[in-house]
Amino acid sequence: MRQAGRSLPEYRSARGTGAILDAISDPELAAELTLQPVRRYGVDAAILFSDIVVPLHAIGFDLTVEPGRGPVVAEPVSSSADLARLRPFVPEEDAPYVGRAAELAVRELPPGVALIGFAGAPFTIASYLVEGGPSRAFARVKALMHSDPVVWHALADRLAAMAAASLAAQVHAGATVVQLFDSWAGVLSPADYERFALPATRQVFEAIRPLGVPAVLFGVGTGELLATMARAGAQVVGVDWRVPLDEARRRLGPDHAVQGNLDPAVCLAPWEAVAAEARDVLRRAGTSPGHIFNLGHGVLPQTDPGVLSALVELVHAEGRAGVPVG
Amino acid sequence: MRQAGRSLPEYRSARGTGAILDAISDPELAAELTLQPVRRYGVDAAILFSDIVVPLHAIGFDLTVEPGRGPVVAEPVSSSADLARLRPFVPEEDAPYVGRAAELAVRELPPGVALIGFAGAPFTIASYLVEGGPSRAFARVKALMHSDPVVWHALADRLAAMAAASLAAQVHAGATVVQLFDSWAGVLSPADYERFALPATRQVFEAIRPLGVPAVLFGVGTGELLATMARAGAQVVGVDWRVPLDEARRRLGPDHAVQGNLDPAVCLAPWEAVAAEARDVLRRAGTSPGHIFNLGHGVLPQTDPGVLSALVELVHAEGRAGVPVG
Repeated sequence: MRQAGRSLPEYRSARGTGAILDAISDPELAAELTLQPVRRYGVDAAILFSDIVVPLHAIGFDLTVEPGRGPVVAEPVSSSADLARLRPFVPEEDAPYVGRAAELAVRELPPGVALIGFAGAPFTIASYLVEGGPSRAFARVKALMHSDPVVWHALADRLAAMAAASLAAQVHAGATVVQLFDSWAGVLSPADYERFALPATRQVFEAIRPLGVPAVLFGVGTGELLATMARAGAQVVGVDWRVPLDEARRRLGPDHAVQGNLDPAVCLAPWEAVAAEARDVLRRAGTSPGHIFNLGHGVLPQTDPGVLSALVELVHAEGRAGVPVG
Repeated sequence: MRQAGRSLPEYRSARGTGAILDAISDPELAAELTLQPVRRYGVDAAILFSDIVVPLHAIGFDLTVEPGRGPVVAEPVSSSADLARLRPFVPEEDAPYVGRAAELAVRELPPGVALIGFAGAPFTIASYLVEGGPSRAFARVKALMHSDPVVWHALADRLAAMAAASLAAQVHAGATVVQLFDSWAGVLSPADYERFALPATRQVFEAIRPLGVPAVLFGVGTGELLATMARAGAQVVGVDWRVPLDEARRRLGPDHAVQGNLDPAVCLAPWEAVAAEARDVLRRAGTSPGHIFNLGHGVLPQTDPGVLSALVELVHAEGRAGVPVG
């Protein structure tokens, strides 16, 4: 349950009001924030407290993460000249605190609990770089793809290398699963996704395949993209609540595990409704070839921790027939 | 092409900088803004210059439409007590300017050019009322559905009656096609859409069926909902660019015409890319049982009017084999 910490009082207490990028660069704090949801909820995996823009920030690219808004880029990328601003990311030198946080977290995790490392997929990172921040229409990034595919692919290639380097460093530091967030891929038509997003996404998974850890590819609104995403090289594909998991399995084919997909907003409803929806997710997901129960997107900050505790209990009690991935 | 006017200099000149709800309540101005895209582009239909929140505003519900943001509600709806604030909408008394604008526009439209009247679907309108404005997670409205279905359905019923009254008045004033915008329906899971959004949507189409005009139901991100939306009572279902139209037809079945679905962002690309994508839309749509060529969402304000002119020419030249709807 990504961002599960946000609704916890111990998170707000430890995290304080500082900038998120500052919190991430403090390994002791980042490790503590990584561990809190595991202690509170007894989930089967922790996700490293970090952000998809950390590698960009670490190479000195001028961006901030604005609370309630997201990543904001001072000078957006628009041409080949801007590519020079994206120098290669060397995790051990540029962001040693990420690996350190992972090491500290792994040391404290209960046996059998996975640590998930993650990175932003090239399209989603590029959308922030080209749009200058969060977007509704993604007009600039789509226009760049179609008007200058050479620059687009060069940009995507650099971001793929950055994501692969970041994931590899997290695995070396102890992450046992990796997840690539292509959060906004669902704004692309299937043809555009295949042409402009898939190639660089494949590069990421190819680069990390020798590491031998299970990999998850996640996006929201990706119903029409699932058959294509199945070719990206991840063993697991995460989907949001829009696509029932039985339908997602049909589109993904028999070789992929699924992750998801309870609507985070349902967790604000009375428990009977949450339980009914969670059981529907388990029923539709089935067990083969693997299901990672999760919300379909990040935990909403106003979620009652008691509901999430009960949800974890329900899934542990009723979903145990599932085959763990990895 | 909805909101096609926004990118026109004559629109900006006539429209000025006043509030949109003021422009809508000036029938001469609203008629002029309705006609401009027809004059400029030679499209086959005009869409009335109006807004989905006009009925709410007209009954005295306290809301504004903020430029660049959307409808903002001063006191959101959260309980059954709030339903009393939604009194029935009587178009002829509460918003006579809408019908007057339609009459003036129809008078000036070239023969054979349709006037599209429209309204907001109950779920989409309710999302503004409950969230208080545009939303990313739609958490409050989903929580209301699940926690208090009785209040939810009572709210949706009132909004259905409001939409039906609004559409009927527009038809009486000369609209020859109606469109119901359920713009945010795509944030719902298929099960939630069927349980919470479909019933009131059906009520709207049932109420206006005796008027005998073709009806379009539109939303974005609705790929997983199409089979359910096909049961709402509209003859035409509009889809955004995420679902190829051949796939949309498979989900809708043989009884529905389709509307769509060029990505508006593609119109910012060089003409060759626009033409290739438009031809792909025409090819996938086929001709039976009807295709209304359109963008998959509103025109982006930064769109070059020259590109839209060329697009209309291309569709007229190459899409004429299609069977017009209505």
